[in-house]
Amino acid sequence: SVVPLKYRQEWKKFSVHVIQDKSDFQLGFVRHVETTLGRSLFNCDDLAAYHASARSVKDSLIVMWNQTQQRQTLLGNKRIYYLSLEFLMGRAMDNALLNMGIKKTVSDGLHDFGFHIEDIENQEPDAGLGNGGLGRLAACYIDSMSTLEYSAWGYGLRYEYGIFRQKIIDGYQVEQPDYWLEYSNPWEIPRHEIGIDVMFYGRVEEAFNSQGHAVKKWIGGEIVRAMAYDLPIPGYRTTNTNNLRLWSAQPNDIFDFAKFNEGDYQNAVAEQVEAQTITSVLYPNDNFHKGKELRLKQQYFWVSASLSDIVRRFKKSRRDWSEFSDSAAIQLNDTHPTLAILELLRVLVDLEGLEWKKAWDITYNTFGYTNHTVMQEALEKWPLDVFGNMLPRHLEILYEVNYDFLKKVEEQFPNNPELISKVSLIEESNPKQVRMASLAVVGSHKVNGVAELHSELVRTQLFPEYVKIYGEDKFINITNGITPRRWLLEANPGLAELIAEYTGGTEFLTDLTRLRQLLKHIDDPEFRSRWSRVKQTNKHALASMIRKYAGRHINVHALFDIQVKRIHEYKRQQLNVFGVIDRYLKLKKMTPEQRAKEQPRVVLIGGKSAPGYFMAKVIIKLVTAVADVVESDPEVSDVLQVVFVPDYNVSKAQRLVAANDLSEHISTAGTEASGTSNMKFVLNGGLIIGTVDGANIEIGREVGTENMFFFGHLAESVEGVRKENRENGVSLDPNLAEVFATIDNGLFGDPNIYKPLLDSIRYQGDYYLVNADFRAFVEAQAAVDAAFADREGWVTKSITSVANMGFFSSDRAVNEYAESIWNTEPLGNDC
Amino acid sequence: SVVPLKYRQEWKKFSVHVIQDKSDFQLGFVRHVETTLGRSLFNCDDLAAYHASARSVKDSLIVMWNQTQQRQTLLGNKRIYYLSLEFLMGRAMDNALLNMGIKKTVSDGLHDFGFHIEDIENQEPDAGLGNGGLGRLAACYIDSMSTLEYSAWGYGLRYEYGIFRQKIIDGYQVEQPDYWLEYSNPWEIPRHEIGIDVMFYGRVEEAFNSQGHAVKKWIGGEIVRAMAYDLPIPGYRTTNTNNLRLWSAQPNDIFDFAKFNEGDYQNAVAEQVEAQTITSVLYPNDNFHKGKELRLKQQYFWVSASLSDIVRRFKKSRRDWSEFSDSAAIQLNDTHPTLAILELLRVLVDLEGLEWKKAWDITYNTFGYTNHTVMQEALEKWPLDVFGNMLPRHLEILYEVNYDFLKKVEEQFPNNPELISKVSLIEESNPKQVRMASLAVVGSHKVNGVAELHSELVRTQLFPEYVKIYGEDKFINITNGITPRRWLLEANPGLAELIAEYTGGTEFLTDLTRLRQLLKHIDDPEFRSRWSRVKQTNKHALASMIRKYAGRHINVHALFDIQVKRIHEYKRQQLNVFGVIDRYLKLKKMTPEQRAKEQPRVVLIGGKSAPGYFMAKVIIKLVTAVADVVESDPEVSDVLQVVFVPDYNVSKAQRLVAANDLSEHISTAGTEASGTSNMKFVLNGGLIIGTVDGANIEIGREVGTENMFFFGHLAESVEGVRKENRENGVSLDPNLAEVFATIDNGLFGDPNIYKPLLDSIRYQGDYYLVNADFRAFVEAQAAVDAAFADREGWVTKSITSVANMGFFSSDRAVNEYAESIWNTEPLGNDC
Repeated sequence: SVVPLKYRQEWKKFSVHVIQDKSDFQLGFVRHVETTLGRSLFNCDDLAAYHASARSVKDSLIVMWNQTQQRQTLLGNKRIYYLSLEFLMGRAMDNALLNMGIKKTVSDGLHDFGFHIEDIENQEPDAGLGNGGLGRLAACYIDSMSTLEYSAWGYGLRYEYGIFRQKIIDGYQVEQPDYWLEYSNPWEIPRHEIGIDVMFYGRVEEAFNSQGHAVKKWIGGEIVRAMAYDLPIPGYRTTNTNNLRLWSAQPNDIFDFAKFNEGDYQNAVAEQVEAQTITSVLYPNDNFHKGKELRLKQQYFWVSASLSDIVRRFKKSRRDWSEFSDSAAIQLNDTHPTLAILELLRVLVDLEGLEWKKAWDITYNTFGYTNHTVMQEALEKWPLDVFGNMLPRHLEILYEVNYDFLKKVEEQFPNNPELISKVSLIEESNPKQVRMASLAVVGSHKVNGVAELHSELVRTQLFPEYVKIYGEDKFINITNGITPRRWLLEANPGLAELIAEYTGGTEFLTDLTRLRQLLKHIDDPEFRSRWSRVKQTNKHALASMIRKYAGRHINVHALFDIQVKRIHEYKRQQLNVFGVIDRYLKLKKMTPEQRAKEQPRVVLIGGKSAPGYFMAKVIIKLVTAVADVVESDPEVSDVLQVVFVPDYNVSKAQRLVAANDLSEHISTAGTEASGTSNMKFVLNGGLIIGTVDGANIEIGREVGTENMFFFGHLAESVEGVRKENRENGVSLDPNLAEVFATIDNGLFGDPNIYKPLLDSIRYQGDYYLVNADFRAFVEAQAAVDAAFADREGWVTKSITSVANMGFFSSDRAVNEYAESIWNTEPLGNDC
Repeated sequence: SVVPLKYRQEWKKFSVHVIQDKSDFQLGFVRHVETTLGRSLFNCDDLAAYHASARSVKDSLIVMWNQTQQRQTLLGNKRIYYLSLEFLMGRAMDNALLNMGIKKTVSDGLHDFGFHIEDIENQEPDAGLGNGGLGRLAACYIDSMSTLEYSAWGYGLRYEYGIFRQKIIDGYQVEQPDYWLEYSNPWEIPRHEIGIDVMFYGRVEEAFNSQGHAVKKWIGGEIVRAMAYDLPIPGYRTTNTNNLRLWSAQPNDIFDFAKFNEGDYQNAVAEQVEAQTITSVLYPNDNFHKGKELRLKQQYFWVSASLSDIVRRFKKSRRDWSEFSDSAAIQLNDTHPTLAILELLRVLVDLEGLEWKKAWDITYNTFGYTNHTVMQEALEKWPLDVFGNMLPRHLEILYEVNYDFLKKVEEQFPNNPELISKVSLIEESNPKQVRMASLAVVGSHKVNGVAELHSELVRTQLFPEYVKIYGEDKFINITNGITPRRWLLEANPGLAELIAEYTGGTEFLTDLTRLRQLLKHIDDPEFRSRWSRVKQTNKHALASMIRKYAGRHINVHALFDIQVKRIHEYKRQQLNVFGVIDRYLKLKKMTPEQRAKEQPRVVLIGGKSAPGYFMAKVIIKLVTAVADVVESDPEVSDVLQVVFVPDYNVSKAQRLVAANDLSEHISTAGTEASGTSNMKFVLNGGLIIGTVDGANIEIGREVGTENMFFFGHLAESVEGVRKENRENGVSLDPNLAEVFATIDNGLFGDPNIYKPLLDSIRYQGDYYLVNADFRAFVEAQAAVDAAFADREGWVTKSITSVANMGFFSSDRAVNEYAESIWNTEPLGNDC
């Protein structure tokens, strides 16, 4: 399929070039309106203009993509494969324009035709292919890998329905399907020619190969075709453009003679059509494992197609199998892709005929595993029968892996059945279950946590036995990071411009440690005043967004206190709202004069609950009820406003972080692995009220604890408090008791609605330490008020914090992965 | 969404132009390879080259499409809407290149890059969105409507799976799904912005409008979204490019609060995804009604979306409703779209608030109905409960239509309950059924049959009561036609070129009566010899196709006797194969010397059976078994070959018609409404062996019966023979008895396989007159042999026939529709 040399001259006359100037863009734009969209200048609305703009820009991305892939293939360096079941990308257009450095070009080009770039960009739906932090982390990392010029591909699923859209009706969350592809996705390249057949169910037979060796054949199962969609991922100010390949289950024409011979054509076709539902919907759970068979099917579908693709690419290079792990590093983002370990073994042993030992070594050296949680309810386990029925051959391989592993453990630690039972890949429960995290540990050469405390808990709480077996070195920490391109340049162009001016250019966007140079200007009144003005402008912008989506007018001169993230008991939005009620009650007890002296505050809470998570939905209802009561109370509404921000997503996050004065990261210590929104909020000049948990700790270390409002029990004392609560019951803090009484008295509607939430604290042991941390939380909030009253002091804290956030760039994180897990270096890009 | 005047100057600088020369094509080609496909000259195979070529050509089609639509809208003339559940388009590329006159340009452009246009064109899958004649007729008509410059749109469904692919395994038909969109369809324009919500089920409530009138509201049903895909239909040598709009059921984000409040997010989404299966599969039955609920759903989905689209377009013109039928003519291709009558009434009365009488008049004047069959088993009827459950409001409207109609009948023919019962739209059977053909007659101002005999049978056998009620004038004949662009120019370029040379140019392609000028050259030896050489070349080409698809080497010097069409008892492939066996037995009785004097013949039989049509599948099995026996018998294989052509479709048809010496159209008289393949075969220089049925009759009249091999009972005597058979049993023709004995003796495998087929003839009344027509058929075949032995005489017959085929152009047919039903004229095209 290579065009012969003698024809290439002719071809190259017509080759496509990357957009250089306005008319390049306009030519592409008009062409896409008039051909791709089949429209004309009599029929071009903002939506059409968005699609034409996106496609015009994508054409350039594809050219860069092609050059990058050709170069990477030619050089043959090691490639990083980042497997993540979620990529929470948000919008693509603004990011592409900024990374390519053509935002003004495109803006001008659109202007010539009477369009405004903001309106056009607002036509883009969020690519909501993720639940929360884990999915957004993957998105940040692939941005960094492109920017840093690593040779890297992401692999995920192209869900037809992203994370549901959240509607608030009567104060309750109602889920609405997010059919984000309704108007097609102009950023993807459909690869119709890349169709990989994935098998499920069936049976295993023993056969003999041409050398007379016994081999296992997995046959007779259902086959579903995976089709690839590629998303070019542009780096910032480089033509290096990596690939994010998302698989979609497609209807196909695979021919099942048996079925058709039964003569039931109509039903046979219906089954083929049905197959495509595998990639219909993203599972909407965050940090919670629910063992649905379709979920396992999604995982294997994705893993099998990706491995097949990776192996095909390797085989094209005609290198020896022993070089496989020098040519590919596969990172498992959480346990979701752990089946890849078994699948690679299957491919190497069953299909490629390698010896087991050799296949195992290759596999072990290829994989790295990132753990994202130590919470039991979030650990993936699959009932053995479900697993073995869907993946009979993989279960055999699992047994083999387990046998080899346990034999070695037995050799190392003889006569220790308790240890064996703890580290076995099979949990001897009823029903028996496959422990995916254990498999990920055993099959990977490195295991990392995502923040210092979390990595410590991984070693000491989650996997102490494995640490004993493998030694400390296998278990490392790489603290998460965020991309400054999206979370500073794109989210907060005003601040980015100001920083560029005071740090001598835009280099800080690729070397975030340069933010430290801001400290030189910390006393410059001009700089400080502009710093404050940027924030104020952003607060105005957020206020108008809040008007649009929540119908509330908020006071832009108040302190903006924001907690946006998935709604979860461990993230403790309930603590926040109880604090708000406490504040409300105190304000009500004041005289008008006293109230007038209080620090006005706008509390913004947003986030989605898993559809089946009852308690989280109660919390949302309470927040909206409190918001309504406070809003309709003229006595307090000048000094306190509460708004529930509906349908929190990446593009709303960009507006929220830019406008924050304070953000809340108040998880029960030891539960939040890292958090990354904490980094985003501080990078945008806000301070944190938070627990000593996840990356809060390292943020505090970097920016100085005097610039953080830490509170609450430490991780090491959590179990003690729980034990005390279990044994002696919870004795409510008097202020919290008053809050509960107010709720019980019906101020926020039918108290029965909230009873399960309150009872879980007062009668059921308060697992998340809401009561135990309540007083400290309220005091920390008082300290915030006091600090904010000193505006100049606050600005100093703000600048100091931003200046010290350099560590939290995802560029730094990715470089750490490359050095300590993937053993690879940036390829550079000089083509 | 119109770009304001001041920006248009700038826009027009970049406007897209239609391909004029090679480099225009090449620019588009390379651009599509490098951007749309995301490939490069290192990665461009024939499939990629096809997609890039197609998209490059389509870009021009879209520009012409846009200009055409703008002009048609501006002029505001009456538009023809052709509603057909099937459009059997075949391939698009060659047709587009020929119609646009750029085939050489594109061929040269591809050649410069090292590609051959034939290879590239062969990458295109057939668009098999139809079963047989009805669907192909629709395809011919939309070609003619574009070529003749009518303002016309086709409306159909975009099935994901076209008509199944036929595999022959052990001699049996096995159906394979035809997922023709696997590599995407480059010829379509997805109209993501055109999404029309279609409702099913639900209930009807009475409400009062603002004027206090009672109105009916249909509410509470399931909603499925119809998305439009447009196929530009280029005319021949005109820029007039009409539209074929195909609807696809799409997943959507329509919000059912009730469902989501139950909290079952996952299932609710699954239901939305499920909705899209409505347009998954084309029903594979031809001339047979099977009352599947999903089929009714397809029909309403399609009709509702189309009507909504038509009405929306009309309302944009701001004309009064009284002008609706002057602005739109809707043709019902068979009864499949008959629901459109009720739907238009619903839209006008319920949604637009028109008076019933006015709505009725508009509806009646808008619709025309083409009947395609008089066979009872093919008439559409829907059980009343299925109908009323899915379309409760339409059932009410149906009752109202029926009430009004029967009241008038009662006034016209008082006290005639038998007549009332016969013409009622509801059949009082158990269960009660809705008679769709009756509704089509009552709701349309014209009803036409598709050939003279058929139209006569429509008047006298099918609808005599309606003729009595409405008078003769409502029931007309328009004999079918075929487009000479596809069926001569594209199928047989050699013959088209020769004809152009001898008729003074290519005008015959748009005025087929000019073929008559060939008669002037009928004695010219040079012309005659070239005529024969073209045929011989085509026979070589067909032979190599047969090698490829059937693995058989056929004798290109034999007479090519072809019967390709859906396998159906009424089309009597069994008669053909019994004749072949008879011939085989006679050959076997001959001495080698006698056999050497016999006319060598290759019998090609092809076609698909409905998957559930047992008897048709037996016929296929018999054909393949006979083919095997004959092929493996060295005594006869020099003078007789039989081949079953697998997976007959439009692109294979193009090769077959070009190579035919003789074609068989041997349906039981009175059963085949018209047939159009008979026209295609004769237009390509073959003769017909056929019954006095369908368009055979008119072909005979035009070309002269001396150039046809007619045989068999006439339509008027069929019922008599059947009665005789029923009453006195079938007395087998001695030769047919010998054929049956041979089958019974196991020469073609287990005789039990064929017993049902043979028994239906010898013991069950021989409904299709196979026995009654057998002797005549065999004699007619002998006459064919004799005539073919006189090669010069045959050439004269061939030329004479072609010269007289002018009448059978679909251009003529479409002009007749326009004049006698649609009351409209070509718009012309001088933009």
